[in-house]
Amino acid sequence: MDCALPSPVPPWRATVLTLYPEMFPGHLGLSLSGDALARGIWALDAHDIRAHGLGRHRAVDDTPAGGGAGMVLRCDVLAAAIDAAVPAGDPRPRLLMSPRGRPLTQGRVRSLSEGPGLVLVCGRFEGVDERVIAGRGLEEVSIGDYVLSGGEPAAMIVLDACVRLLPGVMGRAESGVEESFESGRLEYPHYTRPRDWEGRAIPEVLMGGNHAAIRRWREAESLRLTRERRPDLLTDVV
Amino acid sequence: MDCALPSPVPPWRATVLTLYPEMFPGHLGLSLSGDALARGIWALDAHDIRAHGLGRHRAVDDTPAGGGAGMVLRCDVLAAAIDAAVPAGDPRPRLLMSPRGRPLTQGRVRSLSEGPGLVLVCGRFEGVDERVIAGRGLEEVSIGDYVLSGGEPAAMIVLDACVRLLPGVMGRAESGVEESFESGRLEYPHYTRPRDWEGRAIPEVLMGGNHAAIRRWREAESLRLTRERRPDLLTDVV
Repeated sequence: MDCALPSPVPPWRATVLTLYPEMFPGHLGLSLSGDALARGIWALDAHDIRAHGLGRHRAVDDTPAGGGAGMVLRCDVLAAAIDAAVPAGDPRPRLLMSPRGRPLTQGRVRSLSEGPGLVLVCGRFEGVDERVIAGRGLEEVSIGDYVLSGGEPAAMIVLDACVRLLPGVMGRAESGVEESFESGRLEYPHYTRPRDWEGRAIPEVLMGGNHAAIRRWREAESLRLTRERRPDLLTDVV
Repeated sequence: MDCALPSPVPPWRATVLTLYPEMFPGHLGLSLSGDALARGIWALDAHDIRAHGLGRHRAVDDTPAGGGAGMVLRCDVLAAAIDAAVPAGDPRPRLLMSPRGRPLTQGRVRSLSEGPGLVLVCGRFEGVDERVIAGRGLEEVSIGDYVLSGGEPAAMIVLDACVRLLPGVMGRAESGVEESFESGRLEYPHYTRPRDWEGRAIPEVLMGGNHAAIRRWREAESLRLTRERRPDLLTDVV
């Protein structure tokens, strides 16, 4: 009888398509996500779109049809790069980082972290040719209402948010923050030693050891902060 | 008579307080922001909060008052780090990266890029002691409704977005994207060569050279996409 070892869990795998593969892993190679990368909990491969560029200069972009400033990433070049990096039938979601995309939420991050991994396409210039979005099943995702130099910093945000939720990545010290956020409210204020600092004291209720009172105070503070700063988060609640 | 040289423009200066100074400049040292850094258009200094930690182990955090999971960054340690890195009277805004903060917008990015620079405080763990926020005039800013491993990736997003707007950073090839976004609408679709790709053609109107028709088409597409994907952006418009 063989003594079967438990089958190894395949890592959560991220494939990045970019004109700047040297940006990866970047800060993802350090701290929490870097430890997890070293431990094989997730894997990252970054592919240079320019390797599929055209001609002697490996051109990847061209002027926009209809005129206008800037350059547009060619659909044929980007499709070739995706086809080379991502096997047919690969079940991973394919995200195109774009300020036009659906805003990223913590709920989406959690669901992405529970899947097999991600394909992340990083645009540059004015944008990418629209046809590759439908032609290669890309989903446009935005990390916020601001414009970046390219998709790479945004892709790193998606990866950082997903990786911290993978099983085994966070220890007790780091866990628990998102539960508050996922409830649709902003987190209550935190305090630690010293008790008095520059004339500012830790609120009395937190020092009393009355756990019911502490919970009530934290819930009230969480609601107050959300009302003040992000009433939009409360629109589904009466 | 002296032949006066034009006085040199001081760079837009970013000061980062972090437990992971080795994450900087990271991807900001490459591409558009990296070129601008090398050319002295902006400057970056990252300071290790742990240098102001307490005791032999340079402790920076402690357990939360009132109980709960995780650790809280101490106000006295963070204040000492800020005081050492930022001269009294420094006019730069001091942002604390936090999911509890005011959401970053392109309008805010533009206004920050027009100022003297930024002080960016990166939290870790559960959060930072609330008292240092008022005690050192920090403003909580969020880059989106998701949770990151720490403030560092978020700080890099703020810097990437600001630096690309500094005078001299973007060439013609990169410019123009944000005008669409700042108008409160999502950008229209882009196309470039080839005219036909995998059975998908560039829309006829863009190939005709009728500039008024092209402008109308782009405006209509921009409005359609915004209605479909981000009706929230249209709430101020009738």
